[in-house]
Amino acid sequence: MTGDAKAALAAAEAVVGYKMYVELVKDLVAGKELFTSPMTKELDRAALAVELARAGKTVALVSGGDPGVYAMAPVVFELARARGLSLGGPDGLAVEVVPGVPALSAAAALLGAPLSHDFASISLSDRLTPWEIIEKRLAAAAEADFVVVLYNPRSKTRDWQLGRAVEIIGRHRSPETPTGIVSRAMRPGETVAVVELGRVAAAAVDMQTIVIVGNSHSFVHQGRLVTPRGYMDKYGPDWRAE
Amino acid sequence: MTGDAKAALAAAEAVVGYKMYVELVKDLVAGKELFTSPMTKELDRAALAVELARAGKTVALVSGGDPGVYAMAPVVFELARARGLSLGGPDGLAVEVVPGVPALSAAAALLGAPLSHDFASISLSDRLTPWEIIEKRLAAAAEADFVVVLYNPRSKTRDWQLGRAVEIIGRHRSPETPTGIVSRAMRPGETVAVVELGRVAAAAVDMQTIVIVGNSHSFVHQGRLVTPRGYMDKYGPDWRAE
Repeated sequence: MTGDAKAALAAAEAVVGYKMYVELVKDLVAGKELFTSPMTKELDRAALAVELARAGKTVALVSGGDPGVYAMAPVVFELARARGLSLGGPDGLAVEVVPGVPALSAAAALLGAPLSHDFASISLSDRLTPWEIIEKRLAAAAEADFVVVLYNPRSKTRDWQLGRAVEIIGRHRSPETPTGIVSRAMRPGETVAVVELGRVAAAAVDMQTIVIVGNSHSFVHQGRLVTPRGYMDKYGPDWRAE
Repeated sequence: MTGDAKAALAAAEAVVGYKMYVELVKDLVAGKELFTSPMTKELDRAALAVELARAGKTVALVSGGDPGVYAMAPVVFELARARGLSLGGPDGLAVEVVPGVPALSAAAALLGAPLSHDFASISLSDRLTPWEIIEKRLAAAAEADFVVVLYNPRSKTRDWQLGRAVEIIGRHRSPETPTGIVSRAMRPGETVAVVELGRVAAAAVDMQTIVIVGNSHSFVHQGRLVTPRGYMDKYGPDWRAE
């Protein structure tokens, strides 16, 4: 957690968030008004945070990772627009987004350095996005040799999407492509694995997992998944011996 | 900066980094051995950090933003592989990557919430990547309606790439597409602007700038650039009135 995020929690009178995330910061929010709700109640949480803020309270709306990446920050702005709320001036809602370490960065650090070149991030959740759009993005990212980051790869009710995604990526990339699988990065229950692309669909994966598929240059050295920036290709001969 | 990054700096005996980044943390590294070098000396810095570590020192190799995103972490692993260095065991090099807030997250937070849906990150630097590959990625990302993040949009010697990138993206996206331009996010000299895609090439942009091009659903509300997650499309009618 960043110093700015800690300061924002310290300054808050009320804290709103998904139950599990508020639990993770419970030592930092003791004595404050706490409002938690289940995973799927994003709009309810954003609406509550906005209502508390309009009633004059300083509110922290807590997300895991980075609040701007598949998280709560946009929901507040969507709501503000739908309700025609001003975001400035004396009567306006003062919204500050405090960035954090996104799950893709935490997962990448545990794996090695797989995100060191161009990458595409795709959520496999088709709850709000039509599956055809997700397929189109998977194919485009795979064909253009992006490192591919998959969010929300599987849930109890969405069990076939990851297999289908691997099949689409596999049309443009070798089944041996090194792929990282990280669950609960830097939280209790963390797991980290590097497997071949062809074995991803059979791996233990859930909603708290990030999958990172290497590009055609990614390699594994001593268990670490790395996408090279290209220095060795350019300067290699001078650097292969000490 | 995260607590883990502060702890890593505190534990280090030697600190290696690009001069500007070490300057940013100078209060945290007082009294330590400091080694700085200019922007383009990435391999030299990584090699020095590895040599110091092999000589028995605890070394912090400093990056701006997240060390795993277009930064120094992969260079250490590229070097370790080229030199056949072990990364484990009593004689191995013990490498820990401490994730940070990537520049794309910091820029997004200042703009509003533009990265809330699938996005592709592309560096416009063709120093180590052939320009044809960069063009292919720009076209693929634009056509599949990814939010597009551009790193290294312009330097003193690379002055035409951003204009060309905007032209390619513009084949698949309206010239009115809202686009964020952030320089020196959360550092001295920070600037934040939202412009139409058609005006990006004429904007003040340099190597310390991140450009974020919205997708076809991105909107501007009260100056904030937002890519909706889709809640209002799905649940809108119940949420448009308080």
